[in-house]
Amino acid sequence: MSTKDSASIDQLTSALLEQEERVRNLRLQNCQHEELTVEQERLKELHRKLNETLKETGLASAADSDMQKNFPREALEGLLRRRFFIAPSFEIYGGVAGLYDYGPPGTAVMNNIIQLWRQHFVVEENMLELQGTCLTPDVVLRASGHVDKFSDMLVKDVQTGDCFRADHLLKEHLSKIIQDEKTPLEKKEAAESTLALVEEMDLDEMAKQLRHWDVRSPETGNSLTDPYPFNLMFQTSIGPTGLLPGFLRPETAQGIFVNFRRLLDYQGDKLPFACAQIGTAFRNEIAPRSGLLRVREFTQAEIEHFVHPNKKEHPKIEKVSQVRVVLFPRRNQLTASRQTVYMTIQEALEQQIIDNETLGYFIARTQLFALKIGLNSDKIRFRQHLQHEMAHYAKDCWDLEVESSYGWIECAGLADRACYDLQNHSEKSHVDLTAFEVFPEKKQMEVWVAEWNKGLLGKTFRHEAASIIKTVESFSDSEKQNLQKSLETQGSISVSMEGKQYHLSRDMITFKKVTKSVSGQNYYPSVIEPSFGIGRLLYCVWEHNFYIRSGDDEQRAVLSLPAMIAPYKCTVLPLSKNAVFQNLITLVTEKLTSLGIQHKVDESGVSIGKRYARADELGIPLAITIDFDSLKDSSVTLRERDSTKQVRGSIDEMIHQVHLLSNGKAEWNDVVQKHPIWE
Amino acid sequence: MSTKDSASIDQLTSALLEQEERVRNLRLQNCQHEELTVEQERLKELHRKLNETLKETGLASAADSDMQKNFPREALEGLLRRRFFIAPSFEIYGGVAGLYDYGPPGTAVMNNIIQLWRQHFVVEENMLELQGTCLTPDVVLRASGHVDKFSDMLVKDVQTGDCFRADHLLKEHLSKIIQDEKTPLEKKEAAESTLALVEEMDLDEMAKQLRHWDVRSPETGNSLTDPYPFNLMFQTSIGPTGLLPGFLRPETAQGIFVNFRRLLDYQGDKLPFACAQIGTAFRNEIAPRSGLLRVREFTQAEIEHFVHPNKKEHPKIEKVSQVRVVLFPRRNQLTASRQTVYMTIQEALEQQIIDNETLGYFIARTQLFALKIGLNSDKIRFRQHLQHEMAHYAKDCWDLEVESSYGWIECAGLADRACYDLQNHSEKSHVDLTAFEVFPEKKQMEVWVAEWNKGLLGKTFRHEAASIIKTVESFSDSEKQNLQKSLETQGSISVSMEGKQYHLSRDMITFKKVTKSVSGQNYYPSVIEPSFGIGRLLYCVWEHNFYIRSGDDEQRAVLSLPAMIAPYKCTVLPLSKNAVFQNLITLVTEKLTSLGIQHKVDESGVSIGKRYARADELGIPLAITIDFDSLKDSSVTLRERDSTKQVRGSIDEMIHQVHLLSNGKAEWNDVVQKHPIWE
Repeated sequence: MSTKDSASIDQLTSALLEQEERVRNLRLQNCQHEELTVEQERLKELHRKLNETLKETGLASAADSDMQKNFPREALEGLLRRRFFIAPSFEIYGGVAGLYDYGPPGTAVMNNIIQLWRQHFVVEENMLELQGTCLTPDVVLRASGHVDKFSDMLVKDVQTGDCFRADHLLKEHLSKIIQDEKTPLEKKEAAESTLALVEEMDLDEMAKQLRHWDVRSPETGNSLTDPYPFNLMFQTSIGPTGLLPGFLRPETAQGIFVNFRRLLDYQGDKLPFACAQIGTAFRNEIAPRSGLLRVREFTQAEIEHFVHPNKKEHPKIEKVSQVRVVLFPRRNQLTASRQTVYMTIQEALEQQIIDNETLGYFIARTQLFALKIGLNSDKIRFRQHLQHEMAHYAKDCWDLEVESSYGWIECAGLADRACYDLQNHSEKSHVDLTAFEVFPEKKQMEVWVAEWNKGLLGKTFRHEAASIIKTVESFSDSEKQNLQKSLETQGSISVSMEGKQYHLSRDMITFKKVTKSVSGQNYYPSVIEPSFGIGRLLYCVWEHNFYIRSGDDEQRAVLSLPAMIAPYKCTVLPLSKNAVFQNLITLVTEKLTSLGIQHKVDESGVSIGKRYARADELGIPLAITIDFDSLKDSSVTLRERDSTKQVRGSIDEMIHQVHLLSNGKAEWNDVVQKHPIWE
Repeated sequence: MSTKDSASIDQLTSALLEQEERVRNLRLQNCQHEELTVEQERLKELHRKLNETLKETGLASAADSDMQKNFPREALEGLLRRRFFIAPSFEIYGGVAGLYDYGPPGTAVMNNIIQLWRQHFVVEENMLELQGTCLTPDVVLRASGHVDKFSDMLVKDVQTGDCFRADHLLKEHLSKIIQDEKTPLEKKEAAESTLALVEEMDLDEMAKQLRHWDVRSPETGNSLTDPYPFNLMFQTSIGPTGLLPGFLRPETAQGIFVNFRRLLDYQGDKLPFACAQIGTAFRNEIAPRSGLLRVREFTQAEIEHFVHPNKKEHPKIEKVSQVRVVLFPRRNQLTASRQTVYMTIQEALEQQIIDNETLGYFIARTQLFALKIGLNSDKIRFRQHLQHEMAHYAKDCWDLEVESSYGWIECAGLADRACYDLQNHSEKSHVDLTAFEVFPEKKQMEVWVAEWNKGLLGKTFRHEAASIIKTVESFSDSEKQNLQKSLETQGSISVSMEGKQYHLSRDMITFKKVTKSVSGQNYYPSVIEPSFGIGRLLYCVWEHNFYIRSGDDEQRAVLSLPAMIAPYKCTVLPLSKNAVFQNLITLVTEKLTSLGIQHKVDESGVSIGKRYARADELGIPLAITIDFDSLKDSSVTLRERDSTKQVRGSIDEMIHQVHLLSNGKAEWNDVVQKHPIWE
């Protein structure tokens, strides 16, 4: 690439980033539609130019990664089903798209990952944890924005009624045109320009493009309806009256926000603090595909870290400042080389690539967790959201992306959501969800205060008057200001307390702005949210730890799971089905059980080699074999999965080693140091 | 009570039990309605007579238990909310009846109970565990009977539309009449007779009784609609078309049954085996009350133990044969004294009070689990279901009942469900869900076999012919017999394979009964199902472990939770807020964290006594206090919650003791033996 090309790309990128910022700000200001449209067109033009330039320099389409091309996905997925790690739910009835069951080894690995997550985040960081309900009433998800905005664009085949995601169809349609050698150059370029913008299209633009390219129903060739937003939440009705609409939660986060008041109280009113929730979430995907990566019911593990908006330092940042991470910042995603950067958290903070210490701290901790469960460090990166990907209120977002045979997959998201959620719930519920900041010394400040006609109030509301005063006094400054406006325009305001409405007239209350010496103030905390998709992590762990070993006579699959998350830590194998081994089998399993070590006895009649291979498929790291010598001296062999090496020792000593290895307190090398390899 | 009375009661009871059996058998035979009605009337008459006789002898209404009268429930529930063990879900929006969130200490206790359950049942019994989805398509819950039968009787206020459970209203109405001193004796007796039968009423009878007693809407006095069945499942729609109706699972059990084929394969085709599932279930209660005991979303832990119907012996029965349990058999529930019996599992099996060894084994294991999590052995019993309580297919059912301030509460159910579920799913899905039994030696047996016209089949279905043969051959004997009937009457049958239908005509296939020497046969396994309601157990644990301690100047509440399930094992208390303690606090918490011990630092400025009291409320069994002497010699005190006694020793030694105590590997007495009480 020439210096000139490179300079021109950099220039375009800077212009594009600035333009994105401009559009975003206009949206935030709810500016006039016309002005916004003009700026959005300019943004599109910049995208087009950048794409063309990248194409000219031959940098546009990075080749599919090695993993996408060469990973034996069918072999892995065959193993996962055959050994019942997973299966389509309700398979005997033909299954339901997007629903999967975890069988015994899958459930065990899932439980182990959750247990590790809880230890790594909740216990080690001294977080709170709560458990809310999946059923969620309409009002909550209206406040959070999900009822209005949590949707994908859907198109239907006008004849068959089959449903498709509009963006998927458009993308596939354009890709075909681009790949078709007969496509004229001009049309090809136009398709490429459109393809680059699919993610950013609103409903009108999508409708326009579907018509322009004459996209049709893929199997039938029928016409499609115009796209319309399809809400991804599963709806239901709570209670017998049919009058309380509800949804299955699309994320666990809201259950934490609505409990903020109680959590803050539990923490003795001290910030920062974090609360986690692990649980099921539901999304009614229009057309689930990509196997386990896009499902309709899944396990989330989310953290909401509440912090003062101007105090996002983290007390433990020192502990992770030298952790190295692969970052893929916004700017790099638009430049020619699309290069990631490898740097320490400290460097990323110093260079202001990551917005703040708390976000940086969690990125480091997330990386450490990813490595602990067995993801390959060469195949993970943190990608910063482009402006158009972020919700308008978000300050900065990074996704943990993991490379798989499906490409780079978002497995966790780390977002600075500012105070959006707490403020919304506070305004909609009329419950104060602020924290209180004590100033180092008193300050002169302009504040809104209520002035009461307590006589009239007492006459009207009697013993409830005191609670009304308390409730109103707890409102934030901006709420008080708004209430005064209502008093001026409508003559009265209404206050809700424990589900009842109280009407206060202008002769009972007025609000005034006064300058006051105050010792502190209320504020909405910011929220930093690390959010994990456990099922996706698990699938990527399987891919990263799957390999084929050439055996004596055949190819054998191995799931090289770390002992900490393996479904069983150890398999127990008698040399044959001979009854003489029974007592020793019982002895060994009882000892393993008493130490809480998950294990599996394989007494089937097949050869030891075949049984080793079976254990390898299940990801079992260790095998204890009982043979005729064991009957004489109570010694057994211990075999390690990946090296296939063995050592020999007394039952107690070998079980002790299994215990150490499966708790992460020793490695196989330590065992080999103590016990020579046994052939 | 005279001998004569006693004899007459026993006679009536025997007659009643026999009559129940008769009615049950008639139902099973689907006999003519008329005959059934006659026998049901006889049953009612016997109920009436027994009630009258019991009343005459003064034994009818057992007084409310001590717990129901005297337990300070308000104090407990106040504590549970104040310390955020629980809170109504979406409280800031006014809450939703029947939904509760678990706050940090509640979640921790819940997690600990689940972990113990998994260790006690899944790990120690070498069970399988799986994780299915909450979303369940209609077809599955039709096969299980839930779509048709999982309902309560609902009545509506004709004016307001308020909904009520018909049985609750009728019960309350009758109880008021009975308690009213002005009620004439005859009416009172009639009310008592009706009250005794409420649980057994069908829809017609309920409608009749509501009209007869003129039951009205409790708050408004308005008329009520006739009762109608209200299905308790939450309905939703899966996917965007609206054409796939689904429900939230009302129990986790079905997710195991539909996976039976894969589970059996995973077990190497060997029975018996058990599979467990822990997860959320949903029931749209008409009018939830009784706080945490009747909720709309809850955690279940269920086990399905699959076993040959004639081989219900249990290999580990010896290990529990001497466990003593309080049993409340069917017969005793109807006799005058309503006495429970206290006996060993062995005695209960010998006297055929419990139907079989496997059921007995699980009753014993359930009792051991109940005690482990802190239930009081004086307040638990196993009550056998009366005939009318059991589903028609069930062979024997026992509930673990726990005494609480709400009365005796069902916290677990242990049911022998015979082969009902597997057989139903097999018939509805046309997938073979039988196991295969190998005979000790070959037997001459009559079996149904398919005879094929393979030429025609091959011409018609080409490469699919082989799979069709395989599928049909796998059908059970009775299915083959039915298919032959269809061939004879309709000329063809239809076979479903992977969602596709294949029509086979009479000239392709016929089935014949032949006598054959066979080496084994297919059979539907029986299912023994222990099913636990984790939330109910948890609430009862709180009640059984709550007491008020008289402090120096005030009453203080204590939650005396066993260390294994306590939300934190240990609190760490510096003597004051003085900064000199900071290093030692950090040292202690790091050591506790590295051992995975859940703990809580309380650095607030209040007195040590107050902070002990706070820890007592949270159920924290141990407290480490750091004082000025600690700064000199690194010694700390360790205080135990219930005795309020303390010992002193080095930080390492005290933390070691905390570790032992919280894993159940030592008791406080052991600690006191080693370290003298420190005043």
